Amino acid sequence: MTLTLHLAPGTIALAVHAALEEAGAEYELRWLDFTAAEQTSDAYLAINPKGRVPTLVTAEGTLTETIAILEWIAETQAPPLMPDTAWARARMRETMTYLASTAHVNHAHKMRGHRWADDPAAHAAMRAKVPETMAASARWLEDRMEGDWVAGSFSVADPYLWVITRWLDGDGVPLADYPRLHAFRERIEARPAVARVAAQH
Amino acid sequence: MTLTLHLAPGTIALAVHAALEEAGAEYELRWLDFTAAEQTSDAYLAINPKGRVPTLVTAEGTLTETIAILEWIAETQAPPLMPDTAWARARMRETMTYLASTAHVNHAHKMRGHRWADDPAAHAAMRAKVPETMAASARWLEDRMEGDWVAGSFSVADPYLWVITRWLDGDGVPLADYPRLHAFRERIEARPAVARVAAQH
Repeated sequence: MTLTLHLAPGTIALAVHAALEEAGAEYELRWLDFTAAEQTSDAYLAINPKGRVPTLVTAEGTLTETIAILEWIAETQAPPLMPDTAWARARMRETMTYLASTAHVNHAHKMRGHRWADDPAAHAAMRAKVPETMAASARWLEDRMEGDWVAGSFSVADPYLWVITRWLDGDGVPLADYPRLHAFRERIEARPAVARVAAQH
Repeated sequence: MTLTLHLAPGTIALAVHAALEEAGAEYELRWLDFTAAEQTSDAYLAINPKGRVPTLVTAEGTLTETIAILEWIAETQAPPLMPDTAWARARMRETMTYLASTAHVNHAHKMRGHRWADDPAAHAAMRAKVPETMAASARWLEDRMEGDWVAGSFSVADPYLWVITRWLDGDGVPLADYPRLHAFRERIEARPAVARVAAQH
């Protein structure tokens, strides 16, 4: 069965899109219109009750959560986009988990403050701190980059990091101030599969 | 080399503690006093610049991020606390990622609002919403539980879910309202390894 990816432009679903393209997987895209809040439509909530992207529909069932989908792609598709030692995988997952549970969460406080507070003044306070929290995340990630990729060889963590680097300027954190991350973004966008995907977002 | 786990009582590091005990690993504990903000001491920041727990020191290096540590334990220790099919692993990771990037993040808005805003009024607004966001997380997790464990057999995701179930009452969400999660907590605390660990937190 062809895989079906539900996504919206520029969201973290772009990481899954790029990983599928890098893996040479057969997949179809279902674009959601976030400006029309299509992710909260009854039709989409029937697919993913969390109302988020990405969602990947596979022959075995429907899968959500970016890390889980990326790990599944690495396990089931070829070439395996995963380091080949337990320690390298651990280091890759350390970065990927940081991206999901710290960097992405920091970013979400710019536009999604309503998830965590009802008061508009609180949303404004959260938005105001995003340049600071994302700069801290960029600093940790910059210090972390030791080679061309997150974990030695190209892995599913790289598309994840790529999407975060695309968000930094919009979050008030100049990517150019982080030379390793800046070079990483140029490096990954020079990959033909990533370039093909980027053109659609 | 014996593993060294840096932890604080009742934090998410408890999930790693339980996983190490379940795996029969050789490890030592280094307790941090969060009431004295020891996680922000120079000595600890030299070990983990993020100032968080858990941190696991291994023969190959120092590892942070709960998911990364749990996956590493599952890969390197015996018995392997991981489902034995790619799809079951994907489902396990879907829940574990949800715990890390949604449920744990919701919980953190009770006491750690300063991470995302500077205004004390915003912290209060975040704290006020925690019972609602944690109830939503409990609902998703409750609906998700289909058997005794997160993914068929006992895996590293179970200690993670366990810690979240321990937090619910304190977050204003009665665990008793979620019969599957309530039964899960009783089931996992009946495991000798988990009981040994729980007695120390």
